[in-house]
Amino acid sequence: MRDVCVVGLGLIGGSVLRAAVAAGRTAWGATASAEDAGLAGADGFDVVDLAEALGRARESDALVVLAVPLPAVEEVLRRLPPDVRLTDVVSVKGPVADLVRRSAPSARYVGGHPMAGSADSGWAAGEAGLFAGAAWVVTAEDDADLEVLGDVLRLALDAGAHVVPTTAAEHDAAVARVSHLPHLLAAVLASVGADGGPLALALAAGSFGDGTRVAGTRPELVRAMCEGNRVALLAAVDDALGRLGAARGSLASTGGLAKTIDAGHAARAALVERQRAELTEVTVDLGSPRALEALRALGSRGGRVVGFDGTTVRAQTA
Amino acid sequence: MRDVCVVGLGLIGGSVLRAAVAAGRTAWGATASAEDAGLAGADGFDVVDLAEALGRARESDALVVLAVPLPAVEEVLRRLPPDVRLTDVVSVKGPVADLVRRSAPSARYVGGHPMAGSADSGWAAGEAGLFAGAAWVVTAEDDADLEVLGDVLRLALDAGAHVVPTTAAEHDAAVARVSHLPHLLAAVLASVGADGGPLALALAAGSFGDGTRVAGTRPELVRAMCEGNRVALLAAVDDALGRLGAARGSLASTGGLAKTIDAGHAARAALVERQRAELTEVTVDLGSPRALEALRALGSRGGRVVGFDGTTVRAQTA
Repeated sequence: MRDVCVVGLGLIGGSVLRAAVAAGRTAWGATASAEDAGLAGADGFDVVDLAEALGRARESDALVVLAVPLPAVEEVLRRLPPDVRLTDVVSVKGPVADLVRRSAPSARYVGGHPMAGSADSGWAAGEAGLFAGAAWVVTAEDDADLEVLGDVLRLALDAGAHVVPTTAAEHDAAVARVSHLPHLLAAVLASVGADGGPLALALAAGSFGDGTRVAGTRPELVRAMCEGNRVALLAAVDDALGRLGAARGSLASTGGLAKTIDAGHAARAALVERQRAELTEVTVDLGSPRALEALRALGSRGGRVVGFDGTTVRAQTA
Repeated sequence: MRDVCVVGLGLIGGSVLRAAVAAGRTAWGATASAEDAGLAGADGFDVVDLAEALGRARESDALVVLAVPLPAVEEVLRRLPPDVRLTDVVSVKGPVADLVRRSAPSARYVGGHPMAGSADSGWAAGEAGLFAGAAWVVTAEDDADLEVLGDVLRLALDAGAHVVPTTAAEHDAAVARVSHLPHLLAAVLASVGADGGPLALALAAGSFGDGTRVAGTRPELVRAMCEGNRVALLAAVDDALGRLGAARGSLASTGGLAKTIDAGHAARAALVERQRAELTEVTVDLGSPRALEALRALGSRGGRVVGFDGTTVRAQTA
């Protein structure tokens, strides 16, 4: 099993390090946070300074996992050894790929994004099982290094996740709709409710509680996530504004909301249906000439990679 | 204890009838649904036709509880005996009050709205404990009949609810913000997510699941609720459109979302804080000249009635 070097030991990076060690790998980490470093060291993990961590990665040809916030990515990229095996766990993929092209062009980079988290942050909030059952996006661009792609697949599968292969652009557009827009709408709804004063909050029940829950997430995390995906989020917000504006117009003119409510109900039913759907097993030979294309098509259909033996990818599709 | 006549035996009306009987009252019901009538009768409840139910209400000076959907309210109102004690459980209060003024002007009407429910409907979905711990709005307008207000307080408290006194207008404005707008935003979000295709749905996690949950409610119920509160909902939608548009503008121009995200976080914190706040006990003498004013002020501050001995209202306020 390939060695793993995790840079950044917050909730996600700390959980990746734990999961790698739990899977029997040689793994170590570095972090700019003295608090996270101290806690991780006290928990028995191998934490060294960044230069030492990257030096070891060069010697053992380890997979480096970038787990720092987007604004800190570039500084780490500049310090990477040449030709390093590189992935990341940042919640937006296009901007990270751009930074890698600019600041670490020799890196053998395949982007990643485990879709797991919690309202808490820092090493103390992490756990080896954080990714169990979660989706872990892996970018399978045309120029992807197949060896490193395999490394990332194995790391994600070792952590108990299933892998969703796609491109950076498709990932960013999708998470804008199903993760960043929900956070923005939750913030808007919470504010509109609070504007109603104590009476409104006293009458708030399930729908308001559900609709505002993620507004409780630490604002700096939400901002970093949403602002980092600006272009794709703008498109999703415009879609939402268009639909909400159409509902407003219909309510004002005819008094009816059938189109909006019925479409939303059908969409929610599709989500629930998807989660219950029977899946078909398929395989992709990672050595075949159209392997990357096949993996991306799998992701576009909502499929997932559930196994990899070093040659053959085992996947499920609806 | 005053007798109770429930017209409409769906989820809410059926639960009111069960709760009244469970509290030891003489109570009966009528419904236009043969299915609900059959099920309620089979469960041992006293179900008669509407004329018989209203005739008995006249004889025993019972409290009539209107528990039919808004479009069916007017027809029942026209058949009420004169000077009847009347309340309702419809989710919007201004339009019902208007209908009562027009179609049953002699009725001694005090509006009500128990803030409880579930995704299911019909007699079979109801239960005596549905209102336990829930808010039950009671309209305390200047012209409210204090005897009937007392009847409604006791019915709600018997059912295990706490009572939030307010006006029809304030109720409708508040629920537009904390109940109807959340349903509309959930529908919009579900549609925007589904537009992202199978990949987006495959990547949907907690925030999308929470934000779209109530889009799974039966569309005809959501439409009836939202369309019935048109004027107040338009104001809430305009508030949401303004805030979302401002976020869009800020993201496009400066790339920042601090104002939106921080305001939403503070509003969510206020909601959570409110639910944890220590409450102070206060009392209101229902016979005092400014009792209605005092009750409305209590509701506006987010307070609740928790007891009534026939003279003194016992309440809690933040």
